[in-house]
Amino acid sequence: MSGPELHPDVADLGFLLGSWSGGGTGRYPTIDTFSYGEEVVFAHVGKPFVSYAQRTWSVPERRPLHSETGYLRMAGPGRPELVLAQPSGVVEVHTGTLTDAVVSLSAVLVGRTPTAKEVTAVERVLRVDGDVLSYRVRMAAVGQPLQDHLEGQLHRTGVRLGT
Amino acid sequence: MSGPELHPDVADLGFLLGSWSGGGTGRYPTIDTFSYGEEVVFAHVGKPFVSYAQRTWSVPERRPLHSETGYLRMAGPGRPELVLAQPSGVVEVHTGTLTDAVVSLSAVLVGRTPTAKEVTAVERVLRVDGDVLSYRVRMAAVGQPLQDHLEGQLHRTGVRLGT
Repeated sequence: MSGPELHPDVADLGFLLGSWSGGGTGRYPTIDTFSYGEEVVFAHVGKPFVSYAQRTWSVPERRPLHSETGYLRMAGPGRPELVLAQPSGVVEVHTGTLTDAVVSLSAVLVGRTPTAKEVTAVERVLRVDGDVLSYRVRMAAVGQPLQDHLEGQLHRTGVRLGT
Repeated sequence: MSGPELHPDVADLGFLLGSWSGGGTGRYPTIDTFSYGEEVVFAHVGKPFVSYAQRTWSVPERRPLHSETGYLRMAGPGRPELVLAQPSGVVEVHTGTLTDAVVSLSAVLVGRTPTAKEVTAVERVLRVDGDVLSYRVRMAAVGQPLQDHLEGQLHRTGVRLGT
């Protein structure tokens, strides 16, 4: 395999690396439940972080829906951190735990531009079992309490190097 | 040209679109002045935002240095917003002005993970003249006042669609 070796600080995140394809379901009290297709890429350049890029589209029309992009770091063994930006004008800063291949994150900060919708809390859980990645996102937004928002499942389609 | 049309809300950011290649210089009281190579991509998918992805490398070794990724929106005519994530564990939320082809941004929020270096203020100015993009980043960090940090110049090498 070419490319740099994974930095030891993020060696425990190696199970995430690659391109992932699949989809999920979104729900929230203020919107109709919807399904979406999704692509995720976790990559690295040999430095102590793993980059994350995601996009979703409507099915079957394949109209672009959401996207988000950011980086995972490790504050120490079993202690992942995530920073994230979203085109909705939201940024998230998470800390959490890594146990086996389960990353559990809770936002210590949700920031937003003056025109972004009010998001006040986010929890994210990522779980990898072989070449299957499943995730859940819980969110408190627009006056609603923290609750299930997104749930998806993706399959690893390859390993891509670089960011 | 194939691909979706630029969303009218971000039509005034069209001058940014494309791949850009070049480099810059970094300085700060706490570090040695350094030069770097750089690649920037501004892209869109037909929705009301422009995606931004950047990476730099040392010269001449081409060792990966910094990267950052995020999205530009328009709060209204002449009023850009930027959200950004960095692998250093920092997120930025900016508001600013757009006049001709000059984007002037000032961070209304700088967030960071518990292990990230202390960054307290950031200003960014992007200027495009034809196929030349120049920028300046001013930063207050690790106890130092807001001051010049990065200055770079890039040349447009192509227009890439999608994020």
